[in-house]
Amino acid sequence: MSLERVLAQIDTDIDDATDRLLDLLRIPSISTDPAYKADCDKAADWLVDELTTLGFDASKRPTPGHPMVIGHADGPGPHVMFYGHYDVQPVDPLELWDTPPFEPAIETTAKGPVIRGRGSSDDKGQLMTFLEACRAWKAVTGALPARVSLFFEGEEESGSPSLVPFMRDNAAELTADVALICDTGLFGDNTPAIVTMLRGLLAEEVIITGPDKDLHSGMFGGLARNPIHILTKMIAGLRDETGRITLPGFYDGVPELSDEIRSQWQNLSFDHSKFLGDVGLSEPAGEHDRTPLEMIWSRPTCEVNGISGGYEGDGFKTVLPSRASAKISFRLVGTQDPEAIHESFVAYVNSTLPPDCTAEFPLGHGAPASQMKISHPAFEQARAALSDEWPMAAAYVGCGGSIPIAGHFKEILGMDAMLIGFGRDDDQIHSPNEKYDVESFHKGIRSWARILARLA
Amino acid sequence: MSLERVLAQIDTDIDDATDRLLDLLRIPSISTDPAYKADCDKAADWLVDELTTLGFDASKRPTPGHPMVIGHADGPGPHVMFYGHYDVQPVDPLELWDTPPFEPAIETTAKGPVIRGRGSSDDKGQLMTFLEACRAWKAVTGALPARVSLFFEGEEESGSPSLVPFMRDNAAELTADVALICDTGLFGDNTPAIVTMLRGLLAEEVIITGPDKDLHSGMFGGLARNPIHILTKMIAGLRDETGRITLPGFYDGVPELSDEIRSQWQNLSFDHSKFLGDVGLSEPAGEHDRTPLEMIWSRPTCEVNGISGGYEGDGFKTVLPSRASAKISFRLVGTQDPEAIHESFVAYVNSTLPPDCTAEFPLGHGAPASQMKISHPAFEQARAALSDEWPMAAAYVGCGGSIPIAGHFKEILGMDAMLIGFGRDDDQIHSPNEKYDVESFHKGIRSWARILARLA
Repeated sequence: MSLERVLAQIDTDIDDATDRLLDLLRIPSISTDPAYKADCDKAADWLVDELTTLGFDASKRPTPGHPMVIGHADGPGPHVMFYGHYDVQPVDPLELWDTPPFEPAIETTAKGPVIRGRGSSDDKGQLMTFLEACRAWKAVTGALPARVSLFFEGEEESGSPSLVPFMRDNAAELTADVALICDTGLFGDNTPAIVTMLRGLLAEEVIITGPDKDLHSGMFGGLARNPIHILTKMIAGLRDETGRITLPGFYDGVPELSDEIRSQWQNLSFDHSKFLGDVGLSEPAGEHDRTPLEMIWSRPTCEVNGISGGYEGDGFKTVLPSRASAKISFRLVGTQDPEAIHESFVAYVNSTLPPDCTAEFPLGHGAPASQMKISHPAFEQARAALSDEWPMAAAYVGCGGSIPIAGHFKEILGMDAMLIGFGRDDDQIHSPNEKYDVESFHKGIRSWARILARLA
Repeated sequence: MSLERVLAQIDTDIDDATDRLLDLLRIPSISTDPAYKADCDKAADWLVDELTTLGFDASKRPTPGHPMVIGHADGPGPHVMFYGHYDVQPVDPLELWDTPPFEPAIETTAKGPVIRGRGSSDDKGQLMTFLEACRAWKAVTGALPARVSLFFEGEEESGSPSLVPFMRDNAAELTADVALICDTGLFGDNTPAIVTMLRGLLAEEVIITGPDKDLHSGMFGGLARNPIHILTKMIAGLRDETGRITLPGFYDGVPELSDEIRSQWQNLSFDHSKFLGDVGLSEPAGEHDRTPLEMIWSRPTCEVNGISGGYEGDGFKTVLPSRASAKISFRLVGTQDPEAIHESFVAYVNSTLPPDCTAEFPLGHGAPASQMKISHPAFEQARAALSDEWPMAAAYVGCGGSIPIAGHFKEILGMDAMLIGFGRDDDQIHSPNEKYDVESFHKGIRSWARILARLA
């Protein structure tokens, strides 16, 4: 049977596959920082070359931001569209990396070998699992078992500004029978997962201005407005004592869990003590009347992701600053409306401003949450394929992160999307020392090879 | 009479005097930033050379930090000790400077010519007013009218860590009949001032740590502690709705104004609308039941001078940071005790910490407020001299800034100190585009020439 030979080929080729991933990881394709624009372009070119080698009709497609990479290959079965992103997060604080973030290497750890470097897990390593599965099918059978299209984005870590226009402009080309998205994780080390519930995201920045210049806090302190005070008071007011977010209308559209999902999640035996213990914490910090799994999968959040104002260097400077700013993200669930919440946030911030202070909101873009329809037959086919590869049966789970592409596939292209990935909780994505287990990479490739066989 | 000839000499020499100040301003002696250590040393050497040229027995004296500069010159009258500082504030945000901060120049403005550059007012320009007055006396009479010692510090803008040990170690050498300090301002454009009330300062930094690494806010948001939330809530709790500072015991030792000072300050007709209007503000922001002059001169404050945490670059990063920090200063009055307030602050911050969070306090050093005894005859002599030079009579005033040296002169050396300076409210000290009016410099030199004559 072909699948067995394909899996054997993957095992034989794993070192070369890893080397190819390391090549891609060496390109510092940080999409949010304009200084890395050429590197994003280089990563896109690298992918076009790889796809062409694999027999895809591949091209780099310009956008107002970083380019998309599209590839198509014919095949006998149904048409699947695979999505991943080649851009990565910034690397600061750089001094906390044990090795340079763009000099990836295989590292031996107590839990087994890992691929260390920015993007190893999010999302270059995951993206390459699918490419390598395609490579093995081609190598063994000369063809893919299904018709496959690939869609790689370069702006996922910077709010995907070009994504929706590009999907609308190329809707016919991008529509397939089902979408596959590889940007999520395993549920546990041995339990693969298909994400069927994804939180949305509203990203805000607020800049508060008081005096029109920086002042001396001795000369003006006590008399002049200090924008840091205004900002901190505003932020403190965003939650009440029970951890509930106070914005008017914020909880409109937040559903309660169905009994079915609630009982399934109880069976997952999520160990929040270990989950938190791995990052130096012990107690859940969210809404007092919610379980830890609800806090990260099915409840909306409000987190300050950055704050800045006044003197931040060494030593002390008695400045009373003109401006202070914060970056704030809201994770959304159910049918929460990002636009309505943006408006509620703006109204709330403005209501906290004393005389002489102004607020600017340079961002305010977002995407709603997604809920997959698991009645589509591909879900059970993929779940069976994953269960064949891994020690434990695959689970349908929620995901705290926001992967707006899943919602876009449904809304714009009418496609259901399956989110399958092989990341682990300790991959430190978005943090220093990001890694991807070699096992994730290897069994990830094998998983996709099996899924392609099942779907076909 | 000698004084008239000295004043005429000052007028003749003003362009050369300004050039000498520009030379000193070109040395970027930022004391708080270790990168400028050599420049601080260079500024000290420059002063030693100038003093030697003027006939002072001058030397650079090492400390664990930046050096002191000491000079002595004999004279017939009483012994006066003049203090100033040659270090300057950092220059960030650099992009807000219209000209490079260490390329000083004379600039024509609607209000007259100004000397633009970091340190032009605080404190190099002020310090040089006294040196140039000495130069004119020497040029005209061949001697100074009083015995003069000079004491220049290089750590004033970074908390003066070496000052008290140095004063204790050199107490005999540094003790004179009266101290003169030039680091304050005029009361109005035409009204000179002697500061008799100085706020103290307690400088704090607080670093709050939650998770032991930066986290992905999608994966952990809602469940994990966010140190920015803890920090902002702590800061918001430092004041109540009436602007009063909430630290237990904070107001211990804060005196009410005497009727005499209250009525004198009412006569000063302080125009807070203009004072605030010059920096883009209109309404006083402090304690609701206090006048604007009280807010900046005689009431204690709590100001956040810097805040930092998470992602502060361009774009957005959905990080849930491990740490967040703030720099906070308390201005102190009366007999408020910096150590007691430090302890109260630490106890308050710790009381706001939820489980899993810790706080560090790397600073916590301070100096109490100072109140001068204006019964010393030098005060009325100096007031008369200033009133001779300026259109309006000199006033005894308060000062919101902290100049701990005045208190140290009293406590360690038993000397009363007169704080006389020629800065203006719009000098933008500690801010971009710092300037010193050429009139401040010129009439400042003339003022000191007159004061030396009166004291002698």
